[in-house]
Parts: sequence; structure tokens; C-alpha cells
Amino acid sequence: MQPLSVSLRDRSYPIHIGPGLLDDAKIYAHYVDSRSVAVVSNNVVAPLYLERVQRALGRAGTREVVSIMIEDGERAKAWTTLDRVIDALLAARCGRDAVIVALGGGVVGDLAGFAAAVYQRGVDFIQVPTTLLAQVDSSVGGKTAINHARGKNMVGAFHQPLAVIADVATLDSLPERELRAGIAEVIKHGCILDLQFFGWLEANMAKLLARDRAALGHAVRRSCELKAQVVGADERESGLRAILNFGHTFGHAIEAGAGYGEWLHGEAVATGMVMAAELSVRTGTLRREDADRVRALVTAAGLPVRGPALPTERYLELMQVDKKASGGRVRYVLLEGLGRAALRGDIDPTLVRESIAAAAQ
Amino acid sequence: MQPLSVSLRDRSYPIHIGPGLLDDAKIYAHYVDSRSVAVVSNNVVAPLYLERVQRALGRAGTREVVSIMIEDGERAKAWTTLDRVIDALLAARCGRDAVIVALGGGVVGDLAGFAAAVYQRGVDFIQVPTTLLAQVDSSVGGKTAINHARGKNMVGAFHQPLAVIADVATLDSLPERELRAGIAEVIKHGCILDLQFFGWLEANMAKLLARDRAALGHAVRRSCELKAQVVGADERESGLRAILNFGHTFGHAIEAGAGYGEWLHGEAVATGMVMAAELSVRTGTLRREDADRVRALVTAAGLPVRGPALPTERYLELMQVDKKASGGRVRYVLLEGLGRAALRGDIDPTLVRESIAAAAQ
Repeated sequence: MQPLSVSLRDRSYPIHIGPGLLDDAKIYAHYVDSRSVAVVSNNVVAPLYLERVQRALGRAGTREVVSIMIEDGERAKAWTTLDRVIDALLAARCGRDAVIVALGGGVVGDLAGFAAAVYQRGVDFIQVPTTLLAQVDSSVGGKTAINHARGKNMVGAFHQPLAVIADVATLDSLPERELRAGIAEVIKHGCILDLQFFGWLEANMAKLLARDRAALGHAVRRSCELKAQVVGADERESGLRAILNFGHTFGHAIEAGAGYGEWLHGEAVATGMVMAAELSVRTGTLRREDADRVRALVTAAGLPVRGPALPTERYLELMQVDKKASGGRVRYVLLEGLGRAALRGDIDPTLVRESIAAAAQ
Repeated sequence: MQPLSVSLRDRSYPIHIGPGLLDDAKIYAHYVDSRSVAVVSNNVVAPLYLERVQRALGRAGTREVVSIMIEDGERAKAWTTLDRVIDALLAARCGRDAVIVALGGGVVGDLAGFAAAVYQRGVDFIQVPTTLLAQVDSSVGGKTAINHARGKNMVGAFHQPLAVIADVATLDSLPERELRAGIAEVIKHGCILDLQFFGWLEANMAKLLARDRAALGHAVRRSCELKAQVVGADERESGLRAILNFGHTFGHAIEAGAGYGEWLHGEAVATGMVMAAELSVRTGTLRREDADRVRALVTAAGLPVRGPALPTERYLELMQVDKKASGGRVRYVLLEGLGRAALRGDIDPTLVRESIAAAAQ
């Protein structure tokens, strides 16, 4: 199948989607010819796929392939891990023409992508996402980052990959909970951009949860198409791109309030979308029955519709430090009907409190 | 006087040069209107200039001004310092619309500039260089970085400032040794780009060392003009820009071999230029008398023409890890006559050894 294209001012890059692409040497060959490659992965993904990727890279004509292992989980998005990756790149004498391959989920992509953004002031990288969340979201758009004690993704860069290779066959090995978490971002794309896709998800949720490959392939492709359109129109998140944060302002507060690692990102976004839909009803831009459809689809995906038991004021406090806080006020992505979203900065805090209460324990 | 302009594809930015600009509120007002500003400086520069800059920023209509102090010296270019700056920015609730002002020399500019490049994936910054080296070199071109145990500037980003404000009156407070080190980069610009300017430097070196303000102003302006032309033509150092590394491949080896901090960067570059001129004579692109003019001008500036007493092989080893090593071979910037430079990757190592020996103790 034809790859999707993400169109940016500086350059465009393709997203290859399909089963079995992970070790397709022909795809890699476009990007790595005669160059050194460092594959960054972790001890969960590497036993499953690293050898296949290394062999494909070898067939693709690389000069040499080194692998760099990081720990699994969100805690890897830290300077200490980044420093170890940089150290390994230097030890392997990788020059500015080296290519980093990020093999794994969102954490690997964010960390390896940020390493690529700052190593010797920037080298090329390729995303090979192996989780649904990474395939439909974090591998597209060029956002890379590590966390800071005071907040997630506070240190990072916009750094676009040479290409994304999304092999939907890798989703067979994904734990159930992570599959559902990935579906949260798929639902998000329907909510903010595509009513028809939202309807398709309502009709096909059972197939997605049963890992029907054709259904997953369609969900990944349509999600990437939608996200690519937004990113292409607003690479640096100056305006339009902010709608991709639907559910995330509440979601970040849920993740931080529950303690990072307790909730998966997608789970927090799922509940955050329910809160944001509630807020959209209260500000008068969304009908009650459409908010109920959001809640029902989140439920059908087996995702939580209730946030952790925190005082409402704690939610508000955590949302204040959210990075979308700009000019001292939090901005919210609201639905203007299903399939349309807009950014609003002038929301009455009382409505926010009510919306949190409507979806918190 | 009219500011210089650095022309880049994405945007252009001005370099304001002149005595007394440091606290010119009118200049700041263009960039900081109603925004939060964080001034990053150190305990050597801050007692001299911080209050004046803060007052000017206040008059320029900022929302608030916070100051963040880092330690003096190259050791500040480390993750630990960067993390403290990020922490202070978050503690002050600086959002994505904040502006970072780098007030100090090259270390402050590199560190604060890199903080600006990665804080929340990038915020604006203004360079206010207070050393000659920073005014003629590091503040122009958008290179930012921190060091790694395995090498200088190994982690960084290209991040262009909103503006550079070079107040030559601040050079009055500069230690003699640092003044001379800054002159090394001025000489470099003459060597690689402008024979006439090289001649002007030969005629005016005594005035520069006596801190004649008109002479310093001309040297800063011409250096910035020359560097801005190169950076404008090649922002990402894919080709032409590499000529700015004249003297630096040898220079980095000198700095590393002597132990970082023993030699000032400009001192190492000065001796590195003598070595690179020797190499240019040996490869047949520079006349012996022109290499002697380089050596004489370096001497007239009170800069070293002999490297540290290290085995030649140690120099070569240190040069191998230089970041300009690409495709496994070190590339050299050579002079093709005075005032012209070119990048060469096919140099006989024997000639390199001879050139080092000709300028090492």
C-alpha cells in the first residue's frame, strides 16, 4: 500500500503502515544507505523484534548497526537515560550522519527522538512504533521529550523523523491494557476531526479489541491521516495543532494526581475526554447526547470514564502547571459538535469544576 | 547605528552593536512586550550588569522579570545546570511565550540558548553577550550546546535568537586574557573570509588591545557581518558553515588534551589556526609568507602559537572524536590563500603530523 505523507514546510516524510513492514529491508534502504545506525529499544520489545530489525538494516546496506537498550516505562524519559544513549552513540563513534531507529512504544520514541534532536545538534531518526498508542499518535508529528520532576514532557524538541514504519502485526504482542490505551487516542481523532470515523469506531470497537488486523490497519491509517493533516498545517503547535490535546489537559492532571505510572497515558486521556465533553456541554457547544456517545465509546473500549478520587481543587492546581497554560490561564480544547474541536481560553472555572465532578470518583 | 541582519530562511534577526545598548529599553521593547522574561546570568557578570538589564526590561513593558544564576566557567555547560534553569523556569511558571535573556559570555549563551531550545520544546531568547568572544562568535549563528564527558558541545541544538544586543562598553570590564581570546575569533574571520579585514587587524591590533572603543566596534561589526553571511547561507552547517571551524579541529584537541579549562577556547583556536595554516602550506594551497602572517598576527594579539606538550598521536586521537569527524575521517578547514577557506576530507595524515609538530612544544 502507498505510504501516507506528512507534509511539512521543510520536508515531507512518509508513514508506512501494514503487517510485516518491521523487517522490510527495501523500506529501510531508502534512508540508511552506507550510514551508521543505532537502534534504541528496551528489554520488552528487543527480545521480540530487535534481531529482525537488525537483519533488515544489514540487508539495507548500513555501514554498521549498534543497539542501545533503555529501561521499560515512563521513567526512562529522564536525563539519566538520555545521557546513557548519548554516551553509547559517542562510544560507537556515531557521527552527524548517523541514523537513530526508535524501536518500541511512545517512551522509546520520545526518548530516542529527543536524543536524535540534540545529539551533535541533531541527527536523523526513524520511528518504528510497536504499540498502538505510538502508531496512531506519538510517532507522528515530531514531538520528542523527556520528563522533569515538575511535569511531563517539559524538556524536548520538535524533530521530524525521516520516516515512520508502523507494522500492525506487532500489535499481536501488545498487552490488552495497552491496546485499549492506544484506542483512546484513536477515539480522540474521531471526536475532534471526523464524525464518520467516530461512527466507524462505534460499529467496529469489538473487532479492534479482538485485534482484527484489517480493522486495526484502518484505525491506524485513518488516525495517522487525521493527525498528519493537523501537523502539516501547524508543525509548531501555534494554533490548530492544539486541538490534538483534546482530553489531555484533564488527562495530565489525572496522570500526575494519581502518580505517574498508575494510569496509562491513554487511560488518562480517555477519562480526560469524558471531562472535556462534559465541559463542552456546559459551555453550550456540544449536545448532551453527543457527550453521552463519547462516554459510551470510551466505555465500549474498556477504558475508564471516572478519574481518581482527588479533590476538585487538586485537579485545577495540576492543570495550572500544564504546559498549555499560556498567559497565566489554562486553555481547553472543546468539542463543537462531534468531529469538530476548538481551543478556548476564557472558560468559567465553575464549569470546569462541575465537569471534573461529573467524571471523578 | 542600523543593526546588522542575519538572514535565515525561517526568519531574520538583528544584531545591535554599540556602546550603551545593554539597558536600552527601546530595543528590548520590540521583543518582550507583555511577556515573562527570565534573565540567565552568572555571579561574575550579574553584579556588573544584571540590575541595569532588569530595569531596562521593566521599562520595556514585560509582565515580570525573573533572574536565574548559574556558575561561572565551562563547567556550567552541563545537564545539572540546565536542569536547574529548567526547574527555575517551571517554578516561575514561565509558559511557552516566555523569553529567555542570556546575559554573559559564551557559556551563558550556550547554556541559556540550549535551555530556550528545549524548554517546553522551545521558547524565544535574546543574546546579550558581554565578552568579545561571545559578541563576535558564539552569540551569532544559533548554535547552543552543553558538554558531555566524552566531548564538548556534544548535546545541543540550532536555535536562533530573537535578537543579539552587543554592548561594546561591557568589554571594559573584560579580563585581559579573555579579550585576547576573543580576538582569536576576529582573526579567524579575517583569515577565512576577508583579506582586507585581516590587513586592518594587522594595522590596528594595538588599538584593539588598548580597548579603543571605535576599533572594537569595527572589529565586532565586521566579524558579525562575516559570520552572519556564512550562517545565512548555511544555517545547519551542511557545507559552507564548516569553514567557521578554521582552527577548531586542532583547537578542540588542544583544549581536550590540556584538560578543559586550562586553555581558553580562543587561545586553543589561535594555536589551532597556526597549525591549520601550516597544514595549508603543506597541502600546497597557502604560501609560506601568508602562514607567517597568520602566526605573526596571533603573536601580536598576545595569543599562543604553540600547543601543549602532547605526543602527536595524542593530538590525532583527540581530533578523531571531534564532531566534524564524518564518515570516519576528520575534515580540515584549510586556507586557499589569506581570506579564503575550503573544507577538505582527504588529507594525508603525515602532513597533519608535521603541521602539529610545527606548532607544538
